[in-house]
Amino acid sequence: MAQYQIYVTYKQGIFDPAGATAERALQQMEFDEVNSVRIGKYITLEVAGAADAATRARVETMCEKLLANPVIEDFRIEEAQE
Amino acid sequence: MAQYQIYVTYKQGIFDPAGATAERALQQMEFDEVNSVRIGKYITLEVAGAADAATRARVETMCEKLLANPVIEDFRIEEAQE
Repeated sequence: MAQYQIYVTYKQGIFDPAGATAERALQQMEFDEVNSVRIGKYITLEVAGAADAATRARVETMCEKLLANPVIEDFRIEEAQE
Repeated sequence: MAQYQIYVTYKQGIFDPAGATAERALQQMEFDEVNSVRIGKYITLEVAGAADAATRARVETMCEKLLANPVIEDFRIEEAQE
């Protein structure tokens, strides 16, 4: 079994509504030192089979087709350390 | 300015509806090797000031009060490497 961590973030310049809301909320609480909040996704994926190049290529396809929206989001895949 | 990465994940045993939906969708596409998908949050936070212990403690409080729900979620804070 292979495990991957996937980080999905909005591309630079794309508006992040959840991040902007959290940023404003923190600033209006006691945290006026906050400059910026961006909220992406942190995905843990377990797949059957070896953690080889073929599996990784399939994980990349999963990101492109379903887990991320390539029009507005970037993604980064890391093999999980055991 | 200090930058932090925050990883928010559901606690073990807590149902993750978005993860379960993605898992089923991938399995019904061509990806039947998928065993498990869990979807958490990946937050990038920029705050004014030095990246010292006091700032980190405040970031921890931000997580407890707003960025995570401590009842059902765990969080992990990392200082961003430049």
